[in-house]
Amino acid sequence: MNVPSQPPASRVIELPDPLETWCGDSLPGVRLVCESWGERRGNGDNTILLFTGLSPSAHAASSEQDPSDGWWEAMVGPGKPIDTRRFHVLCFNSLGSCFGSTGPASPRPGGDEPWRLDFPELRVEDIAAATRAALDVMGIRQLHAIVGPSLGGMSALAFLLRYPGSARHLLSISSAERALPFAIAVRSLQREIVRSDPAWQGGHYDSDAQPASGMRLARKLGMISYRSPGEWTERFGRRKMAEPDPGFGPRYEIESYLAAQADRFVGGFDPNCYIYLSRAMDLFDVDDHVRDGQSPLQALAELESAAVVGVESDILFPLQQQRALADNLADVGVATRFHGLASIQGHDAFLVDDERFGPVIADYLAGI
Amino acid sequence: MNVPSQPPASRVIELPDPLETWCGDSLPGVRLVCESWGERRGNGDNTILLFTGLSPSAHAASSEQDPSDGWWEAMVGPGKPIDTRRFHVLCFNSLGSCFGSTGPASPRPGGDEPWRLDFPELRVEDIAAATRAALDVMGIRQLHAIVGPSLGGMSALAFLLRYPGSARHLLSISSAERALPFAIAVRSLQREIVRSDPAWQGGHYDSDAQPASGMRLARKLGMISYRSPGEWTERFGRRKMAEPDPGFGPRYEIESYLAAQADRFVGGFDPNCYIYLSRAMDLFDVDDHVRDGQSPLQALAELESAAVVGVESDILFPLQQQRALADNLADVGVATRFHGLASIQGHDAFLVDDERFGPVIADYLAGI
Repeated sequence: MNVPSQPPASRVIELPDPLETWCGDSLPGVRLVCESWGERRGNGDNTILLFTGLSPSAHAASSEQDPSDGWWEAMVGPGKPIDTRRFHVLCFNSLGSCFGSTGPASPRPGGDEPWRLDFPELRVEDIAAATRAALDVMGIRQLHAIVGPSLGGMSALAFLLRYPGSARHLLSISSAERALPFAIAVRSLQREIVRSDPAWQGGHYDSDAQPASGMRLARKLGMISYRSPGEWTERFGRRKMAEPDPGFGPRYEIESYLAAQADRFVGGFDPNCYIYLSRAMDLFDVDDHVRDGQSPLQALAELESAAVVGVESDILFPLQQQRALADNLADVGVATRFHGLASIQGHDAFLVDDERFGPVIADYLAGI
Repeated sequence: MNVPSQPPASRVIELPDPLETWCGDSLPGVRLVCESWGERRGNGDNTILLFTGLSPSAHAASSEQDPSDGWWEAMVGPGKPIDTRRFHVLCFNSLGSCFGSTGPASPRPGGDEPWRLDFPELRVEDIAAATRAALDVMGIRQLHAIVGPSLGGMSALAFLLRYPGSARHLLSISSAERALPFAIAVRSLQREIVRSDPAWQGGHYDSDAQPASGMRLARKLGMISYRSPGEWTERFGRRKMAEPDPGFGPRYEIESYLAAQADRFVGGFDPNCYIYLSRAMDLFDVDDHVRDGQSPLQALAELESAAVVGVESDILFPLQQQRALADNLADVGVATRFHGLASIQGHDAFLVDDERFGPVIADYLAGI
């Protein structure tokens, strides 16, 4: 079983004590791990901050120090859509995650025992706050742009809502202002599946005896929500496996695909961190930031531009939510573009449909 | 915990020994339970055979003998869309189910122990064959019409494919010629969730210690696939529960809704029966009935008419599959109507959107 670890090219930023969380807890000893590409100019004049989805580490792309492919290898690098010859790109492992940053799997300050469920309630606003504090440590005041896919788009919104003026441009990808009940239902069930695995032990599993069965099942449900029915019809149809299980195991290629995806995930992500981050996505809502009856996005009015990119086949963050985000940004006066892409890969398209996403991202960044 | 039982108004039909299954096994001692409404004329001249979805019993509607609401109470009865003043309506509990008919939970002939996983592989074709055998026992040769929603639509197709000419009219509702990989993925995961519950014990659970946790989780996943994102946005939005769980339990109304649905299901359906019927849905494919390179539906050419009714928001049996079924019926010469309804309740709409389904069903039956 893989154990989550900090990517080799990353560095650690220790935050000033304590981090005050959105729900009023004090979190001591917070550290965030980050990785960067390209040369930084000034206090962040050419810096693009990249917020991640739920499960990635800070390793968005390969580099000299770490030549392994990153989670957005096709998009970040010299000559790529997020061109590191021009931009200084910065990616943090989110607060609450398990690839070097502080989260439920990190040791509690003053001891070796992990926080586990004693970690305070995590909100997307806390991911934003920890990132803001880390940027302060690094001397980066205003970012050129923020890019955020999925949860990363929520983190980007939370960041701009809490720290107005801290970026000039925003690129939101396959994200939304809040989770709708279908997405909440899916994620709530994923969490319950993990918690129902007896090996979870109320969060007190050993690192070498994780609730692997629950995590496998939750990941399969994740894949059902991350891709699209149309993609699977085209890609797998009703093809049977070479050696279908004669009993109740997998017979169809779609089933072996899900099994392979689950195998890849299990052991690579801490179950408690997963539960915390997943719930944070449910709880986020820009409406929590409404002031004086204004649009909740009023704090984003200082943005010079924004682009909202989504996918027609996304069932987790449906396109109409993304169109609404674009409309609401425009309503507070931000010059906003909206792109509804015809990808068939659903919510995950930004990770795999490079042909559609590459030009849209490159074109937006070229103009800012 | 409820124990599945035979509805009070039902009768038992003992089939001649043995039933030869589609996969070549011999199943002895098969009995099917059925319920009926209305007066039968002749050998079935006015009989409508109603095949059920995965989980219902034979109790489709109330009657004098059993005044409790049936699973299709709004559709079956005097003056209702399936009008029992005119039609003799017959509904069987499917082979493989657990409400009186033979299935994995029934005692094996010659003993008290249930079949459990020694029950032979169940196919939709076997549901059709057992029903055909029961009709023979009852002296019903040609049916006036067959009505089948969901799995019931697949059973209706299997019935007509295996016994051409045994009905004059077909009404298929929210069903399809085969399962697509998205539906297979959902059901495969549901079965794996049940099998992963330690209480399942490889199918050898005691009746008073069923894998309730697995069944609850599987039912929640079922509800996610049976309804639609749009319905839940409209019905629940992001409303929180009156007493949200401060920990990792439910906080939103959508979560308490799913919990209530799961509570209602658990104990009411046998887990092994569930697994068998669920897999049968994945395995069914009209293409298994292709002969001489003809359309697989060639055997249905004798139908005088057919109607295919589906729902735009159905993610389990998407509308394009239902349009394809209608087109393919028309292609073999059957006078076929197609209705794509704008219900927002997804696959389950036929159970709840009486306003849309009632008139369409009544109108079709009035014309045949």
